[in-house]
Amino acid sequence: MDYKQYVANVPDFPEPGVLFRDISPLMANGPVYSAATDEIADYAQKLGTEMIVGPEARGFIVGCPVAYKLGVGFSPARKKGKLPRETVSVTYDLEYGQASLYMQKDAVQPGQKVLVVDDLMATGGTLAATIKLVEELGGIVVGTAFLIELTDLHGRDKIKGYDMFTLMQY
Amino acid sequence: MDYKQYVANVPDFPEPGVLFRDISPLMANGPVYSAATDEIADYAQKLGTEMIVGPEARGFIVGCPVAYKLGVGFSPARKKGKLPRETVSVTYDLEYGQASLYMQKDAVQPGQKVLVVDDLMATGGTLAATIKLVEELGGIVVGTAFLIELTDLHGRDKIKGYDMFTLMQY
Repeated sequence: MDYKQYVANVPDFPEPGVLFRDISPLMANGPVYSAATDEIADYAQKLGTEMIVGPEARGFIVGCPVAYKLGVGFSPARKKGKLPRETVSVTYDLEYGQASLYMQKDAVQPGQKVLVVDDLMATGGTLAATIKLVEELGGIVVGTAFLIELTDLHGRDKIKGYDMFTLMQY
Repeated sequence: MDYKQYVANVPDFPEPGVLFRDISPLMANGPVYSAATDEIADYAQKLGTEMIVGPEARGFIVGCPVAYKLGVGFSPARKKGKLPRETVSVTYDLEYGQASLYMQKDAVQPGQKVLVVDDLMATGGTLAATIKLVEELGGIVVGTAFLIELTDLHGRDKIKGYDMFTLMQY
């Protein structure tokens, strides 16, 4: 499927000079959203995925239906102040700025096979941070999946040694 | 299913005096997350739902697998600065504070049958705001669904005339 026709390209968002790839039209279209979910779920299934983890908030939109398709759980990686109870955290550099990401201590079980999912892989900062959190909790990152990869930013270099599946490359 | 055993009750979060109902353990458990999704999807199916709308960010975790199960799209209602392109917005009172919610102008098609989904119905402020946005876009709100309803807060009074389905009441 040509998913790119369902991505809106928005210049200068959220900041001047950034070309934002807006996946909202893809998500709002039932058959296209289903097809994208199925492709990621097929990839996840082959890896023996037992848990999906996705960073706030578009990672939830991509990851949660994949979890449902596989019959596994979903745990979020979230920003400061969003998660109650005991958490682990990591601070990292974004494409624009800096951020911290948190996960609850019981979000992943030791030895659990985890697929990390998000909408877009840019510099790989969010991805590397999420992987770090999962591993700190004892999870095994079996792969990573994204709707979109921005190849010019070489995010893959940040996560050598981890398998990656992407539906679209720009 | 007794879903309540998968909810963590957290006193004084995010503020003193608030008892936070944390649904993370439910979401992290594959069979329980699937069962909850199936119940909401059954409800949605009977209403002829053509689109799921959920507010940021736990509404995504509840609503997105329901959309997948039905084969329909998902559109988010988000906070300020998160959505590119043309939006509609509404400002409303929260259980603690005030907030604005935005949706993109093409998020819902005129005449489309929409189910509004979130994790928790408290005072009904977020729900009423989301309904207002969907209707401003021409969507028809056929029902609303939540994992949890806090009945003491009488949120139902804010949305009389709309059908509601909830899996747990406190």
